Amino acid sequence: MAVVLGANQYGKAEVRLVRVTRDSGDDAERHELSDLTVSVALAGDLADTHTAGDNAKVLTTDTQKNTVYAFARDGVGEIEEFGLRLARHFVDSQPSVHRARVRIDQHAWERLGSAPHSFARSGREIRTATATFDGEAAHVVSGLRDLVLMNTTDSEFWGYPKDRYTTLAETKDRILATAVTARWRHASPDSDWAESYAGSRTALVEAFADTYSFSLQQTLYAMGSRVLERRPEIAEVRLSLPNRHHFPVDLSPYGLDNPGEVFHAADRPYGLIEGAVTRDDAPPAPLAWDLAEGGL
Amino acid sequence: MAVVLGANQYGKAEVRLVRVTRDSGDDAERHELSDLTVSVALAGDLADTHTAGDNAKVLTTDTQKNTVYAFARDGVGEIEEFGLRLARHFVDSQPSVHRARVRIDQHAWERLGSAPHSFARSGREIRTATATFDGEAAHVVSGLRDLVLMNTTDSEFWGYPKDRYTTLAETKDRILATAVTARWRHASPDSDWAESYAGSRTALVEAFADTYSFSLQQTLYAMGSRVLERRPEIAEVRLSLPNRHHFPVDLSPYGLDNPGEVFHAADRPYGLIEGAVTRDDAPPAPLAWDLAEGGL
Amino acid sequence: MAVVLGANQYGKAEVRLVRVTRDSGDDAERHELSDLTVSVALAGDLADTHTAGDNAKVLTTDTQKNTVYAFARDGVGEIEEFGLRLARHFVDSQPSVHRARVRIDQHAWERLGSAPHSFARSGREIRTATATFDGEAAHVVSGLRDLVLMNTTDSEFWGYPKDRYTTLAETKDRILATAVTARWRHASPDSDWAESYAGSRTALVEAFADTYSFSLQQTLYAMGSRVLERRPEIAEVRLSLPNRHHFPVDLSPYGLDNPGEVFHAADRPYGLIEGAVTRDDAPPAPLAWDLAEGGL
Amino acid sequence: MAVVLGANQYGKAEVRLVRVTRDSGDDAERHELSDLTVSVALAGDLADTHTAGDNAKVLTTDTQKNTVYAFARDGVGEIEEFGLRLARHFVDSQPSVHRARVRIDQHAWERLGSAPHSFARSGREIRTATATFDGEAAHVVSGLRDLVLMNTTDSEFWGYPKDRYTTLAETKDRILATAVTARWRHASPDSDWAESYAGSRTALVEAFADTYSFSLQQTLYAMGSRVLERRPEIAEVRLSLPNRHHFPVDLSPYGLDNPGEVFHAADRPYGLIEGAVTRDDAPPAPLAWDLAEGGL
Repeated sequence: MAVVLGANQYGKAEVRLVRVTRDSGDDAERHELSDLTVSVALAGDLADTHTAGDNAKVLTTDTQKNTVYAFARDGVGEIEEFGLRLARHFVDSQPSVHRARVRIDQHAWERLGSAPHSFARSGREIRTATATFDGEAAHVVSGLRDLVLMNTTDSEFWGYPKDRYTTLAETKDRILATAVTARWRHASPDSDWAESYAGSRTALVEAFADTYSFSLQQTLYAMGSRVLERRPEIAEVRLSLPNRHHFPVDLSPYGLDNPGEVFHAADRPYGLIEGAVTRDDAPPAPLAWDLAEGGL
Repeated sequence: MAVVLGANQYGKAEVRLVRVTRDSGDDAERHELSDLTVSVALAGDLADTHTAGDNAKVLTTDTQKNTVYAFARDGVGEIEEFGLRLARHFVDSQPSVHRARVRIDQHAWERLGSAPHSFARSGREIRTATATFDGEAAHVVSGLRDLVLMNTTDSEFWGYPKDRYTTLAETKDRILATAVTARWRHASPDSDWAESYAGSRTALVEAFADTYSFSLQQTLYAMGSRVLERRPEIAEVRLSLPNRHHFPVDLSPYGLDNPGEVFHAADRPYGLIEGAVTRDDAPPAPLAWDLAEGGL
Repeated sequence: MAVVLGANQYGKAEVRLVRVTRDSGDDAERHELSDLTVSVALAGDLADTHTAGDNAKVLTTDTQKNTVYAFARDGVGEIEEFGLRLARHFVDSQPSVHRARVRIDQHAWERLGSAPHSFARSGREIRTATATFDGEAAHVVSGLRDLVLMNTTDSEFWGYPKDRYTTLAETKDRILATAVTARWRHASPDSDWAESYAGSRTALVEAFADTYSFSLQQTLYAMGSRVLERRPEIAEVRLSLPNRHHFPVDLSPYGLDNPGEVFHAADRPYGLIEGAVTRDDAPPAPLAWDLAEGGL
Repeated sequence: MAVVLGANQYGKAEVRLVRVTRDSGDDAERHELSDLTVSVALAGDLADTHTAGDNAKVLTTDTQKNTVYAFARDGVGEIEEFGLRLARHFVDSQPSVHRARVRIDQHAWERLGSAPHSFARSGREIRTATATFDGEAAHVVSGLRDLVLMNTTDSEFWGYPKDRYTTLAETKDRILATAVTARWRHASPDSDWAESYAGSRTALVEAFADTYSFSLQQTLYAMGSRVLERRPEIAEVRLSLPNRHHFPVDLSPYGLDNPGEVFHAADRPYGLIEGAVTRDDAPPAPLAWDLAEGGL
């Protein structure tokens, strides 16, 4: 038996970049704003640094951070595009880097009325992108998180198996609420990113709202399917949907009824529904997805 | 010397209430939604419970929670109104309770298009209200927090004293960004709460956007003044404005200039600017404000 | 009516300082470590900066940060002492600064065995200090927060009033758990800070553990009293104790009893018990305490 | 092309369980305490619920929660054992459940002196376990997270490649600090869990402390190797080590030197080093690891 190095990667995480564009269009007074958190992860020929402390092949995480800021000088554009530029650069410029993955969170801001350079941060969802390049293929996964949605009716839950530990009452009317984390893989690394994001987001939201739901699993599948039906450029959708339970409060001890109007919003525990929806003819692309902790 | 009990209060904190209104207006299908976090704090004749373990005068925090849900059965309305109803109830119904303070956070939701009962949580600011009643006078403080604003120019900072430890360069153009916490005290506990909130919020945002700023202190004062100038029902405004520093990145090592376009958004440390703006003829009302930890 | 500036302060918040001492005692190899978060708040003659954008009297928050690091060059020592040094410096060196308040959080680390320069962060409580100087008097408040304590028995709760909204069952045996935030004011700004902290912390913990409790209020008073009884240098104690509810789970639907052994640890809502315990002959010192938001 | 359901799982997340043992050993007064957060994830024959809203095969997450509490009635023991009991139960009792994964976080408490039933929460690391059962094989991964370690010297970083964007100065002496997340897979689901955890934790900590480090990658490999060398029952170790940068403060503008004593502890960005260390003869066991988001 010998001890050996397994899968590994390293990089600079959570580089906070704000890019102001000062001369957008005809109006020199009018600014645009892009607020990003960028994380880089590189993999490659890193055995010596792990086993012998030899850093000759380690592009430092400080250099990675500098590169993010320097590349922003030329503008950021759509985050998928910015991620691809960075990922290609790291692999193309460093022979020891065999794979680069760049994850970007975009925090949305809204212009204050017609003010030329004043903005309020929109706290709604965070738009995300992951761009991966291994020297040959490039992959792009777009997505969002923290999109909190609620249907106050049109949700039932019944017909489930009952065992010794089952006490839950069946219901024909409940609140269904969740905080959507969704990621969708593009079939090719070449898309109209802004239009694709807007369309995918709309598909998710509309499917959530107009699905009469018998389970959050059913809603998840409807959301993923809707994206695939509408967006030919998307090959696969992965969703993680916590079930944010809203329990009707029993007001009968106070002589009151509660016709589905007064709810306790619970924190923990919560249901967690996770699933993928894919095209049956789309080849899988495991490289496209983050090396999550367990996926190393 | 003897040990004595000083100021004290107790209550149920962070009751999570979601209230659905199912028959709003003519359309029985159309729901409305109110999402609140309610905290109650009671003070009064509580010496015996502290010193002798006698709970005969302790309205339990569990009962307080139940009361919040029960009162919601009749509707919530504006949070200032709901807070006042609760505060008056606790003092009026319990002889041992001499003062009740009810703090409410309201989490905003937006309807999804024209959907009758589907909503997305708006992550922008949280609206707040504190209602206090001591058996005689009622006070209301409205407010907001987590409203993140940015001006990408029209901000200078120079002319400050230099001592041995000063290294900061003066600037004639910088980003000014903050996360506004603001609270404003109503002169009387009787107002058009919705209209007053909307008007005060607009005053704060507009003053932030249109003030050419030489310091965040100046912007703070402009924001508070604007509320008082526009809203005769408001007697006092208190603001807490963290200075969310955005530092221009030095790109010169890479042979690039940076004409105010690429910024590092820093986390810590941050400046923190706090101040009150009042009318000179408004009598102070310390009871209106939260007993903060240090204020006991 | 005119709009006027009310109470105000400003400063640099959350300066993260780690101070290594390399030559502690006889062993040049042995390091000591101090990990602090320092926040400065200054008040004084600041009307012009608010109303006219004149910064001639504004010692910048950047300079305040630099001063914290520069003063650390001479060593940090006990945080009360370090806070006093800084507070006196700001008032004594800047005529426009009339009051300085320095708040420090100390994050504890423990040496790894007998290793000379290796440490693990102790996640237990954070030690806190607030030093205030107004040019004449200096005040020191020591404290701690995030000290999570639990008694698994010796706690009852009964005898409370029942109204229409009361459903809570009385109990002769429950878990009592809390996360202690405590602050205690020293009668003079001159103490053996390390010994005083250790003794006050022990008093709080022992009083929590050995008080047979009929309410968390009673436990709070016992904790505050114990500090005052043991520590003559302390004039006043303020405590904020969230009641971290642990509800016994009803296992009867599964044919099981639950003799006080299986509990659900709830997040929200929670009871919140706040109170001060003082000496009857100690003059109050409001200046010693933080200007909390509502206290401006 | 058809839309199809991909990998999926569901379950109750973050069940907060506190288990008190009242009759530990000879002393009926002496209590023991176990504080767990339990998350269940089930996979199996769930196509109908996703595509047709048929819940006949959905063991509800509420039932899962009830099961956790009911099983705790018989005692919890080591978290690996408790996880295995639960995972086997779900698969063995529900034909439609083909795989169960139970993740448990254990929050440590320490007895207050010799008090029989009083405890303080130890804020140090959280102990973790993941037990997985698919009807045939059972896998156990133990671990910890939030173990914050620091070496104040014996760390160098130099010899790395320089490109256009490199500005970092090489150093022969720096602080090395990290917050360890580690997970290690047991070769068989049958171990002395308590002894194994203690030994693995010690191996990690000692390797961190006594490795003279030329990179955090090198330290990571030393930590993983140490576990495998000492613990024959462990087949694989996965580590995620954020590099918590501590930058020496330049005090020269104030006429002061800084011989490695005054540091700024930075928040973001941070390096992130991730890697696996394995035995070359250990068969991989992907089922053992969490289905992370990207791993579906």
